[in-house]
Amino acid sequence: MAMVCLSDFEAYAKKYLPKIAWDFFAAGADDCITRDENILAYKRIHFRPRMLQDVSVMDIRTKLLGTEISFPVGIAPTGFHQLAWPDGEKSTARAARAMGTCYITSTYSTCTLEEISAAAPGGLRWFQLYIHRNRALSQQLVRRAEALGFQGLVLTADLPYTGKRRDDVRNGFCLPPHIKLKNLEGAFEVCKMNPAFHSVLDPSVTWKDIYWLRSLTHLPIIIKGILTKEDAELAVRHGVQGIIVSNHGGRQLDGAPATVDALVEVVEAVQGRVEVYLDGGIRKGSDILKALALGAKCVFIGRPVLWGLAYKGEEGLQEVLRILQDEFRLSMALAGCASISEIGQHLVQFSKL
Amino acid sequence: MAMVCLSDFEAYAKKYLPKIAWDFFAAGADDCITRDENILAYKRIHFRPRMLQDVSVMDIRTKLLGTEISFPVGIAPTGFHQLAWPDGEKSTARAARAMGTCYITSTYSTCTLEEISAAAPGGLRWFQLYIHRNRALSQQLVRRAEALGFQGLVLTADLPYTGKRRDDVRNGFCLPPHIKLKNLEGAFEVCKMNPAFHSVLDPSVTWKDIYWLRSLTHLPIIIKGILTKEDAELAVRHGVQGIIVSNHGGRQLDGAPATVDALVEVVEAVQGRVEVYLDGGIRKGSDILKALALGAKCVFIGRPVLWGLAYKGEEGLQEVLRILQDEFRLSMALAGCASISEIGQHLVQFSKL
Amino acid sequence: MAMVCLSDFEAYAKKYLPKIAWDFFAAGADDCITRDENILAYKRIHFRPRMLQDVSVMDIRTKLLGTEISFPVGIAPTGFHQLAWPDGEKSTARAARAMGTCYITSTYSTCTLEEISAAAPGGLRWFQLYIHRNRALSQQLVRRAEALGFQGLVLTADLPYTGKRRDDVRNGFCLPPHIKLKNLEGAFEVCKMNPAFHSVLDPSVTWKDIYWLRSLTHLPIIIKGILTKEDAELAVRHGVQGIIVSNHGGRQLDGAPATVDALVEVVEAVQGRVEVYLDGGIRKGSDILKALALGAKCVFIGRPVLWGLAYKGEEGLQEVLRILQDEFRLSMALAGCASISEIGQHLVQFSKL
Amino acid sequence: MAMVCLSDFEAYAKKYLPKIAWDFFAAGADDCITRDENILAYKRIHFRPRMLQDVSVMDIRTKLLGTEISFPVGIAPTGFHQLAWPDGEKSTARAARAMGTCYITSTYSTCTLEEISAAAPGGLRWFQLYIHRNRALSQQLVRRAEALGFQGLVLTADLPYTGKRRDDVRNGFCLPPHIKLKNLEGAFEVCKMNPAFHSVLDPSVTWKDIYWLRSLTHLPIIIKGILTKEDAELAVRHGVQGIIVSNHGGRQLDGAPATVDALVEVVEAVQGRVEVYLDGGIRKGSDILKALALGAKCVFIGRPVLWGLAYKGEEGLQEVLRILQDEFRLSMALAGCASISEIGQHLVQFSKL
Repeated sequence: MAMVCLSDFEAYAKKYLPKIAWDFFAAGADDCITRDENILAYKRIHFRPRMLQDVSVMDIRTKLLGTEISFPVGIAPTGFHQLAWPDGEKSTARAARAMGTCYITSTYSTCTLEEISAAAPGGLRWFQLYIHRNRALSQQLVRRAEALGFQGLVLTADLPYTGKRRDDVRNGFCLPPHIKLKNLEGAFEVCKMNPAFHSVLDPSVTWKDIYWLRSLTHLPIIIKGILTKEDAELAVRHGVQGIIVSNHGGRQLDGAPATVDALVEVVEAVQGRVEVYLDGGIRKGSDILKALALGAKCVFIGRPVLWGLAYKGEEGLQEVLRILQDEFRLSMALAGCASISEIGQHLVQFSKL
Repeated sequence: MAMVCLSDFEAYAKKYLPKIAWDFFAAGADDCITRDENILAYKRIHFRPRMLQDVSVMDIRTKLLGTEISFPVGIAPTGFHQLAWPDGEKSTARAARAMGTCYITSTYSTCTLEEISAAAPGGLRWFQLYIHRNRALSQQLVRRAEALGFQGLVLTADLPYTGKRRDDVRNGFCLPPHIKLKNLEGAFEVCKMNPAFHSVLDPSVTWKDIYWLRSLTHLPIIIKGILTKEDAELAVRHGVQGIIVSNHGGRQLDGAPATVDALVEVVEAVQGRVEVYLDGGIRKGSDILKALALGAKCVFIGRPVLWGLAYKGEEGLQEVLRILQDEFRLSMALAGCASISEIGQHLVQFSKL
Repeated sequence: MAMVCLSDFEAYAKKYLPKIAWDFFAAGADDCITRDENILAYKRIHFRPRMLQDVSVMDIRTKLLGTEISFPVGIAPTGFHQLAWPDGEKSTARAARAMGTCYITSTYSTCTLEEISAAAPGGLRWFQLYIHRNRALSQQLVRRAEALGFQGLVLTADLPYTGKRRDDVRNGFCLPPHIKLKNLEGAFEVCKMNPAFHSVLDPSVTWKDIYWLRSLTHLPIIIKGILTKEDAELAVRHGVQGIIVSNHGGRQLDGAPATVDALVEVVEAVQGRVEVYLDGGIRKGSDILKALALGAKCVFIGRPVLWGLAYKGEEGLQEVLRILQDEFRLSMALAGCASISEIGQHLVQFSKL
Repeated sequence: MAMVCLSDFEAYAKKYLPKIAWDFFAAGADDCITRDENILAYKRIHFRPRMLQDVSVMDIRTKLLGTEISFPVGIAPTGFHQLAWPDGEKSTARAARAMGTCYITSTYSTCTLEEISAAAPGGLRWFQLYIHRNRALSQQLVRRAEALGFQGLVLTADLPYTGKRRDDVRNGFCLPPHIKLKNLEGAFEVCKMNPAFHSVLDPSVTWKDIYWLRSLTHLPIIIKGILTKEDAELAVRHGVQGIIVSNHGGRQLDGAPATVDALVEVVEAVQGRVEVYLDGGIRKGSDILKALALGAKCVFIGRPVLWGLAYKGEEGLQEVLRILQDEFRLSMALAGCASISEIGQHLVQFSKL
């Protein structure tokens, strides 16, 4: 089976992963409208490509908060990588470093932060954080991540409670006994993770908790899950360094907008004061180009990471990233851009249809 | 079979109900365009969810004309509950009371109003009324309902004649002999109910009959079936206390607008002078949130009630209501609202697509 | 098999007609986009129905150029009725008279105008005319029709050449030997009828030929096939008495607009100076109501006539008309109109979707 | 099998061509969105046809840069005609001449320019050029073409690199040994043709290279692949004689607009200063009429040429062209135009849907 595009990895993962794991990774909230819209929205944007530009030398490098990455695609935080591949997040970290990009490591990793750091020393990593009712737990995680050289803190803002993913409820989703949320040291068991109103996460978190986070660490804070201009403005005012426009892969509030649609209003509100990123629905190089044209500094991929891991671990994920890199470079060239700085809103137009 | 969402109850009912009953409950007029649009219209509305609001304490209670209900979902009037479950409307009344909400009891109930009242004393109930050619019959029903403690009178305005539901015509729909419209004491037989132009209902009813109704009772009058701003204005001027935006579940005029689309112009016309409700197409918690964001004080469910009854009677209907309640609470929290009063039009946007 | 709506007759005809006849009647030009749009366009129009109007006495009669018909649906000109039923146009004439409506008799009838007149004396009929290269032939037809009591002359303007209907080409469509275009007395054979550029019809006809027609007859002239405001204006200026907005059932220029969409601009241009009618895509009572709300004085049905004939001849066609009549009356009542004069543009709205 | 419309040829080719050749010809980039949009876009344009125009004498001739062609459809440049038919481009040249139209001969022909010229002396041909890294090679090709009587030079601007066509990658697309790119004299092998960043084509080409081309030849220069008003303006300023609005059949940048959509802005920018043509998605006569109504002077067909060749070589391609010619003439007549000069923007309207 030739792995030509990301759908090939998806098909592989669907075929070879245990159903309960596939269902968990694939799940969207309720009717999965938002999950699917994340992808469909790109089809409603078309390019205005420019011809006869010198694209003989292509430079697709960019910077995340000042640190160079090889191309504007990072690894979004997703949990439970050992469900996809035995080495779990260690493989993810190695692939990300090999490809020269940033890996946002999830609180719900199945390897410890120490293991992940040791697996790929020197790699660019950000740590994704949920704020727990037990604040000491969150504080300890932040301190550990900072000490281990993580270079950014990503606060997930869209999960005061877990979205309702029907298949997980039907399957009674639960981690198998040999897989642990090692960073939480048995703080809770995943079978308890359900859409009901009891959870270890703190649903009372508000904007002022950004100040609390700020007091814990010198790391830049990136907020993930912003979908409106109002929240973008609040994020900037509360001093974050970056915003990830995200709807949690359509896994939280069904009916939330496609991220590439929400991106427009966030970028307009932010006016360049902080960096804006996006995750959700990126499946090919031209999607990346569209997001960048609309103002994203970088995009992050979620499910394709898991498909790559399921295919061949570190190597599979590298293949996923390499395909995206090649496709992105080619899309840029065909649109007439030789470097990231030439990408702008003039390149795209929303279809009337 | 796990009952995770309302579609599970629908699938159950379709499988286990007699075809003639399923077809009757499922029927829409003509090509069923309006019936289906009621549901599709919600997919064209997306949220603008707000993050980092304190949603640790959720309050989803609201009031219907001053009376508190546990959450903003009531039971719309539908007929013939014994077709779905032997105890019929008695089970419906018990489930509604158990869940702390309002049950609009249909004229076409298969239990008497007295039986229904006795089954769930103290429950909040409104009585749904058709005006019959034989006005004495309608008058007597109103007086009985008021005497039995019903707290509102719902006048259905959209059925001067019965809509054309093709499957009912094909099936020669007819109540089985053991099921009776007990409140009408043999006033007519349902096999006579057909789309032709003879009927026991009075097609000459006009707005002035609101004054006649008003003269019969002290109960608040709620008018059901309004779809335009012009009629909303007339309703307010004629002194009703509430308006239910409804197209009769798509069973009357095919081509009528989806109720959530019509809601917008009705709410705008009414300007808060009376309460506005909606029925039609509510299938999950986020639909409720969308309707409330667009100005509905409460929504009512029709077919899902019958699916719940078909599944397990009173218990099944409670399960349906509980699922909606949980989903609604979760949607509110994920959109950043901790109480009903925080829900507003800023939360939603009509998609261009 | 219960005949509940027009689709039932369509299904019957498709099953029982010879394939070559079914294909001929069903055919649209090229990709059949316009044929199908004629129907789809109605789904994009929704009603703004009004409640609590006195609809106890319904009056659905209207007038065509001063002559009363029982309801605003007439028989559009279609050819070759003997392909559908042995008695052909004689049955059509009888059914139209029985139902109190107007029958536009086609030049391409398979009974003589004399036979048709004799079959239903006193029926309201208009004669549909193509202008032949042999003008004497057209002149003679007009004179015969007038002498036989036809009360209007319908000039088809959209067929300078025959549209390309792929199935007819594939089938080598040809009338069977026992069926003749009797009014043309062997002037041409239908196997010669093809999309190529030789034909008995005159492609040099222009607006000035309206004056020639006017010189031949005292009958009112109705022009059929108008789709733009420019042509509507020309028609009025050249003294026609009526306009039929038509795209020939989607059989001529594929890509022409749906008739109900074109109706709007024609009605606006005409400003009531002449009567405007429509054919194309009428399949249920609410379609009629939509067309009237947008300004049509009457609609005409084409293919459903042939389905009715194929089902049971005169009786089948009466059944088709009776269903439309019942559905139209019911739609009017449910929209709050008791008579044709109450129907207006306020009743409808084009959907954004 | 009757060949009634172009889809019949497509079906034939799909059935009888080797899969690897069919896939290559059919391929679009990535998800084939642009390839398919090229066709779908025509369905969103409807006509405003005019009636009662004298269309008895039809004149569908037009001129390309002053040279008359029999109707406004030419042969777009496509490569590898021997994959479709043994005689390859020789057959194409003969069919084009027989039908009195222009054949844009591809650099990637599998016959030499000399063979092609000899096969159809006197035929109107333009030569399509890619600019190679090896400029001498391009220069030599231009000089050969000019010497052989080619009357125009078409510079393809949208292929600095080859688009990613998934099926070609999966199939490992490669010319069979007996088929050569004869005009390039073994300059490269087609198995090396891949989406990676090494290629014989020069990705550093810019607008100033138009001046270089101009210095090589007296032939008019036509630029192919323009999709924006900005590039249209640049093309005019750099002195080209014509612009072909093209997205390379959807084979380069997926997400580029449908050509008929892009045509509008290019025509508006050019304001008649140079001729504007279009390729992509033409499948029937009415598509041609739509493109001309929107300002194209002529359209070119790509894949249908290959289908015609695959069917019966020269004869098959003539049949394809004759069908388009007949359909176009008929569409014109049915829209009320007797000659090309009567075609204008008033004939079309973009659908809201």
